[in-house]
Amino acid sequence: MPPYLITTTTTITVKQLVGRTAVTIAITIEKMSGLLSSSPVPLEPRKAPHVLTIAGSDSGGGAGIQADLKTIEAFGCYGTSVLTGLTAQNTKGVQAVHAVPSDFVIQQLQSVIEDEPPIAVKLGMLTSASTIRALASYLPKLDCTTVLDPVIISTSGHHLLPEDAVEALYDLFPYVTFLTPNIPEAIRLSRTNTKETELKGLADMLQLAKDTQLKTGAKTVLLKGGHGKVSREDVLQYAGQYEIVWEEGDEEADTVDVLTEYRSTLGLKVEKDLVVDILVTGEEVVALFVGRKVDSSSTHGTGCTLSSAIASAYATRRKKDVPAGKDIEVFKRAISYTQSAIASAFSFGHGHGPLNHAHLTARRALPPPTKHNPHPFLTHLIQSNLPLWKSYVRHPFVVQLGNGTLPRECFEHYIKQDYHYLKHYARAHALGAYKANTLAEIQAFSEIALHVARESEMHVAYCAQFGISRAELAATAESSPCAAYARYVVDIGTQGDILDVYMAVASCLVGYGEVGLWLKKQVEEGNAVLEGNLYKKWMEDYCGAEFLAAVNRGIENLERRVAEDPPSPEKLARLTAIWHECVRLESRFWDMGLNLIH
Amino acid sequence: MPPYLITTTTTITVKQLVGRTAVTIAITIEKMSGLLSSSPVPLEPRKAPHVLTIAGSDSGGGAGIQADLKTIEAFGCYGTSVLTGLTAQNTKGVQAVHAVPSDFVIQQLQSVIEDEPPIAVKLGMLTSASTIRALASYLPKLDCTTVLDPVIISTSGHHLLPEDAVEALYDLFPYVTFLTPNIPEAIRLSRTNTKETELKGLADMLQLAKDTQLKTGAKTVLLKGGHGKVSREDVLQYAGQYEIVWEEGDEEADTVDVLTEYRSTLGLKVEKDLVVDILVTGEEVVALFVGRKVDSSSTHGTGCTLSSAIASAYATRRKKDVPAGKDIEVFKRAISYTQSAIASAFSFGHGHGPLNHAHLTARRALPPPTKHNPHPFLTHLIQSNLPLWKSYVRHPFVVQLGNGTLPRECFEHYIKQDYHYLKHYARAHALGAYKANTLAEIQAFSEIALHVARESEMHVAYCAQFGISRAELAATAESSPCAAYARYVVDIGTQGDILDVYMAVASCLVGYGEVGLWLKKQVEEGNAVLEGNLYKKWMEDYCGAEFLAAVNRGIENLERRVAEDPPSPEKLARLTAIWHECVRLESRFWDMGLNLIH
Repeated sequence: MPPYLITTTTTITVKQLVGRTAVTIAITIEKMSGLLSSSPVPLEPRKAPHVLTIAGSDSGGGAGIQADLKTIEAFGCYGTSVLTGLTAQNTKGVQAVHAVPSDFVIQQLQSVIEDEPPIAVKLGMLTSASTIRALASYLPKLDCTTVLDPVIISTSGHHLLPEDAVEALYDLFPYVTFLTPNIPEAIRLSRTNTKETELKGLADMLQLAKDTQLKTGAKTVLLKGGHGKVSREDVLQYAGQYEIVWEEGDEEADTVDVLTEYRSTLGLKVEKDLVVDILVTGEEVVALFVGRKVDSSSTHGTGCTLSSAIASAYATRRKKDVPAGKDIEVFKRAISYTQSAIASAFSFGHGHGPLNHAHLTARRALPPPTKHNPHPFLTHLIQSNLPLWKSYVRHPFVVQLGNGTLPRECFEHYIKQDYHYLKHYARAHALGAYKANTLAEIQAFSEIALHVARESEMHVAYCAQFGISRAELAATAESSPCAAYARYVVDIGTQGDILDVYMAVASCLVGYGEVGLWLKKQVEEGNAVLEGNLYKKWMEDYCGAEFLAAVNRGIENLERRVAEDPPSPEKLARLTAIWHECVRLESRFWDMGLNLIH
Repeated sequence: MPPYLITTTTTITVKQLVGRTAVTIAITIEKMSGLLSSSPVPLEPRKAPHVLTIAGSDSGGGAGIQADLKTIEAFGCYGTSVLTGLTAQNTKGVQAVHAVPSDFVIQQLQSVIEDEPPIAVKLGMLTSASTIRALASYLPKLDCTTVLDPVIISTSGHHLLPEDAVEALYDLFPYVTFLTPNIPEAIRLSRTNTKETELKGLADMLQLAKDTQLKTGAKTVLLKGGHGKVSREDVLQYAGQYEIVWEEGDEEADTVDVLTEYRSTLGLKVEKDLVVDILVTGEEVVALFVGRKVDSSSTHGTGCTLSSAIASAYATRRKKDVPAGKDIEVFKRAISYTQSAIASAFSFGHGHGPLNHAHLTARRALPPPTKHNPHPFLTHLIQSNLPLWKSYVRHPFVVQLGNGTLPRECFEHYIKQDYHYLKHYARAHALGAYKANTLAEIQAFSEIALHVARESEMHVAYCAQFGISRAELAATAESSPCAAYARYVVDIGTQGDILDVYMAVASCLVGYGEVGLWLKKQVEEGNAVLEGNLYKKWMEDYCGAEFLAAVNRGIENLERRVAEDPPSPEKLARLTAIWHECVRLESRFWDMGLNLIH
């Protein structure tokens, strides 16, 4: 079933009977140029934005640089880390602390910075006043965005920063782009005399956020409201005044009753208490981020996660035209990531468990194409069942065709059935055009459909050489192996999406390329003959430059498709099953020729 | 366009003119049971297997616990870490080392172990003899699988383990499940007198691997052959003797000429030098892992990555019936991951760059369903364009229908067009059955198609009440808004895969549920009237238990689909576009009724 079989300037002259009149037809096939031509698949990986964390180590993996690195990774950034102190820690608490000398902190920082400057730096537990002062004198040399999570007390209640270190933070604040305190930290850092319990609703929180920004001098403050409870009414009274970003929409608004209904059938209730994070830049409230409180004890490392999520979201977005403190999307992504990382946490340990940092990462079943392996998809397809592939591309039909021992009647049977197959193969490409979403892809598929249709005229010419008329060709009944394969291709294409069409037409294209190349090598090695071989033209066509160019474009399209939308392991298994079935049916098609199966 | 509109035991009796004869028809609709019933979407996340790394810190993020944590994350495991030493390090080398006291190493280990025992432990740079001895006396208490990467010299040539520490390793080996030395390390640990340059091909490497296992006493040794070059001929001579695992297939084998051809058109060559890793368990060679050498300088942290990949692959697979050292798939996955992490590395720093640990992770566009948010997909769809959604579910047509002020002719026009819509809506579900891959799903879609078809009989009944005969109904021309919407649904379903069918039929189902619930609330609040309202039956149907059950099943199916095969951001954007278009067309459908558009 020769697809894309177009040679550059071939003119075939055939005598054919039309009724009782012999007609000479000259068929000239034009060059198959521009067919599915496209830019090459990129083989160089995209560089991940560099995000550095300067913080402590949590042996339990849920907070500190461990939480930071997991978060940075989840955002598709590259994480480096400077350790300020180590903790022997788990979900139940901090059992011991080992401080890292300040000069070694700076030494680590220098190693990182000198080699590759980060786009964003997250600062977490800074352990001691001397380390904070050392950083305060180093940071001005660095031209980059910083996020400071002023870790003073751990989730488990452990004091992580001595008083003199807290005071030293004020030396650091002028170099801080984003400061992310929770309510107790903001009270401490804004030097307010208010107690946490004295805060009355959102109005007091707004004041606290503004005070914190003013007193610390950090460019932007995100006050984390996780420790407070705010009512929907309290939020709504600021609706006209500030931008309100509902993390998952305002579920009590009356256009989503259907969601409330669904939730109640699952026995779940809408949490009424809201958590509000307040974003202040230049003494101005930029936005309120409102979400429903998550009912979970898996909150160990929430602050670390949010601050490194802000650094990562910023590093992946960086907008020149929006001031960093006003790019609401950065904070929205970071808050939303942290919120769903808490909500999707699995049980781990006996205390406050860690967040699920990997809740937004899925596993690709295939590596991306690289210079080392530019065709990972096809490598996988072929290697996933090599004996099956061999049964197709080294079929006795092909071997006999190459050495000229293939009985002529076998070839004739094959070529007549292939004429039918081509019709459906052209239809499959027309179907691809129907399934396409861009005019470029519609054009590419249509061109192939057109070429396959024209190619069928070459089959007519072939057959004429074998004394088979067009009428006889058209009247030949479709054999079972031909129908089984051709109709499978069209059905798979109809049932699935455009990738399924690509899959269904692939093994025919690639396999004939393999056969053509192998036969050429066999001729060179004296295991097959070209001159005097009845099937010379067939052999030449399939190792010709035009056909191989089409094969290469076909491979390129397949690789691009799966590189652009990498399949999950389940989806890859489904695509592989289509490939296997097509390869099996190709092999049956050769059987049909060899054994004259009808 | 009422979908799934089936009430339990309703019998409607209608008088209808057939020709000039009045016929009384009684329609009884049976209970819509079992329709698309399925197990609930799981809301509890799967627990990630716990993998612990005991190693040093690389500030540059490419080796040490940083590489380990990134690898563990990439394999979908949960990583904890015990630090043995810190380095100020980058891609150019190690600038300084800070050792962690042995008792603090054990303290960290205790914190981790006591809270949640790991399934696998990876041991890397262990820094000092005292730490190694402390671990050797602690490990026997731990019943878990261990992987030891005997880090003696860094990629950049830095000595990371003093001589006495290397000797101390022999105390640790009895507790090591997998030992992963490279050739220089294996020479050192097997106490062989051979120099690396004296190794002659694969035979000597096999001997070295066996000697290393014997001399160390580690249960299994994976000798990493990255420092050696092996020819294909050398490998093939062991083909009958040992299991040979070709990482990407044997590309020089002659059934993949088409790949070689593709590669050459890209200007790339097949690397001839092969790298062979040798797996030895119980003095027996289990397998040879063969891959083409990757031409890259991004090899910083390769050993760390491979060993933590083995720990992670083991943790995710654990097979009770296969001895750990003979589960070839564990090593295949780990080697393959490491190999493609090198091949897909991006440029970073000025020396030996890090691997691309994230090359197999893709970003999900949606978090998984949780108890906090059991419907993340629908939340996203609705919130992504809330004004559009409101224009549909709070349309003036609905408001007027609720308070009884909707002109009768508007409703009549609407209901006649909806009769046409239902036909296509039924066809769309039949198409869903065609696109399905399981008999269960075929049955579910077919049942809905059947119910919608029956439901159309209720429309006939409705219309009869309004004095519209079946003949008049059938003869009504399809209005543009009806055709635009109905044909869009069928076209999207045909063009895409089964998920597109789900998408195309979703907003009709969910939106009518929302309208039904809202009207019910409006009646309760006195903003709408039921008694005496011409449209009472319509209002009751859409807030009835049967219909809402169908809505809930529809939501559940949507959420399950996207949770099982999480869409990429690009795919989510495409699905969202379908939703928006359907919602827009629903709104136009109400417009049609209200403004009598034809």
